[in-house]
Amino acid sequence: MYRPQITVLDCTIRDGGLMNNSNFSDELVRAVYKAICDSGIQIVELGYRNSKKIFPPDRFGPWRFCEEEALKRVTDGIETETKLAVMMDAHKAEADDIGPREASLVDMFRIATYVKDTDKAIALANRATDLGYEATINIMAISHALDRELDEALQQIEEETKIVACYIVDSFGALYSEDIDYYIQKYRKYLKTKEIGIHCHNQQQLAFANTIEGIIKNANYLDGTLFGIGRAAGNCPLELLLGFLKNPKFNIRPVLQVIGKHILPLQKELHWGYHLPYAIAGMLNTHPDDSMKFLQKAKGDPDSADFAAFYDKCAETEE
Amino acid sequence: MYRPQITVLDCTIRDGGLMNNSNFSDELVRAVYKAICDSGIQIVELGYRNSKKIFPPDRFGPWRFCEEEALKRVTDGIETETKLAVMMDAHKAEADDIGPREASLVDMFRIATYVKDTDKAIALANRATDLGYEATINIMAISHALDRELDEALQQIEEETKIVACYIVDSFGALYSEDIDYYIQKYRKYLKTKEIGIHCHNQQQLAFANTIEGIIKNANYLDGTLFGIGRAAGNCPLELLLGFLKNPKFNIRPVLQVIGKHILPLQKELHWGYHLPYAIAGMLNTHPDDSMKFLQKAKGDPDSADFAAFYDKCAETEE
Repeated sequence: MYRPQITVLDCTIRDGGLMNNSNFSDELVRAVYKAICDSGIQIVELGYRNSKKIFPPDRFGPWRFCEEEALKRVTDGIETETKLAVMMDAHKAEADDIGPREASLVDMFRIATYVKDTDKAIALANRATDLGYEATINIMAISHALDRELDEALQQIEEETKIVACYIVDSFGALYSEDIDYYIQKYRKYLKTKEIGIHCHNQQQLAFANTIEGIIKNANYLDGTLFGIGRAAGNCPLELLLGFLKNPKFNIRPVLQVIGKHILPLQKELHWGYHLPYAIAGMLNTHPDDSMKFLQKAKGDPDSADFAAFYDKCAETEE
Repeated sequence: MYRPQITVLDCTIRDGGLMNNSNFSDELVRAVYKAICDSGIQIVELGYRNSKKIFPPDRFGPWRFCEEEALKRVTDGIETETKLAVMMDAHKAEADDIGPREASLVDMFRIATYVKDTDKAIALANRATDLGYEATINIMAISHALDRELDEALQQIEEETKIVACYIVDSFGALYSEDIDYYIQKYRKYLKTKEIGIHCHNQQQLAFANTIEGIIKNANYLDGTLFGIGRAAGNCPLELLLGFLKNPKFNIRPVLQVIGKHILPLQKELHWGYHLPYAIAGMLNTHPDDSMKFLQKAKGDPDSADFAAFYDKCAETEE
């Protein structure tokens, strides 16, 4: 039994790009795009469309900007019903970078925002929907949001936008299943005309489980990535999500094949996945940046890695 | 808020020993034992006490047999309230290997069994409790058990034993949270005088999440291992479990330290943890042995690894 409203989005290139400054080869992005299309997944996100004024193009790869020419190179000739999404950070994007719909390969703009930048997010989302695109707003770092501010943001999003979905984004991998229930109830209270989405991180190995919890509580937009690639401990593994969902239109084989051929080899250079400093950051609800630095240092000098001291440092950190 | 009835058991050496024929050094076992004692965890399991007639001692290390002399070497001089457990397989053990209580360092015998061997398990558990030990019965491969047979086994266990807890063992990492609910309800229906335990495997990255689900549904005996070490994709990581539980008597620091010093270095030789063939076995509810063989072969020749073909092979397997 499956729920036809469930929409799966693959954000391999976008979230994985946080581990390599969005520097994937055209060949890899095209292979991922084709595999996602072949598997029947409804949406594929190929990167950020962020401002070149903020991200110097000599330091970031093409998937930080997702210019139309780049999107054309990796999608040309592949017939599909899968929609193409790009993400904009509310505080790192320019409205002018959302161009006319008829000149674009993009179907959906996803606006990532902190609660405090909700007004910027709404302005970007409205520009996108006014031009005929679909849009979502993805509220990041939700485990640090103050309830009063989050309530107001959700009320505004309901009243002032035409987005299709608003996401719970567990950036710090800090949420347990009871927290997912709590946020979904809150979203549902305000968002009468939008779907609820869920994007989880895997610091505590809960990204897949929390996505299932979201499904049970009626979240209908679900994010995953190939083999869980993504920042720090990564995301909900798409292959597990497909194994759980029973929609007969999904085909897991292209997903398994592209992981074997293109994603596993990336592990030699990009080290996403479970590790102790991420687990510590997740259980203490802190940003994974310090964990990534700790691991970088430990790589050069494993004997120096004092995980108990790292725990105490994270536990004492005031934000 | 914590539930004082919750009892945590570390089975690092026992389940981890399935990856190296129980060949850990005395130094490592002693370090693990001391760390678990220092962290306030209630029970530590140091291996199997299985029959030397079935497991040739020249092929298996001391932690497959847990003779009293071996237990003494790694525990001597460490004062603790932590109980010492060993496991017996109902179909691979001899009742005579449970000796007099006063001559033993063991506090608890855990009897692992398939549903079909329940009578053997009950006989061993009764010998243990008659001699004054605590005992549990751990029903393995529960995702393959037929309901009618499982019901009868639970009824017998309730009526014919004095065990403290009966475990749900998700050997194949195939259960989702709704399945945990289902089995706990079933156990509760029959087991009026025993606690319910939960032992999860991580094929689908659900071991920790399913353990939390068990806690929510009132399972009070919880298994974990250091950094999740265990057969195939491993177990519920003990460090995550301690991060979740709020019992002030638990101290996570000794656990983090022993992982850094003794468990992470094992990863060079023992490859537990998430991988695609385990994910496939978990979602298809099959034994991980074929996955381990597949990975062994792929290690020598990565280009030969066809994960989609492996999926199809597992999906077609009749047991």
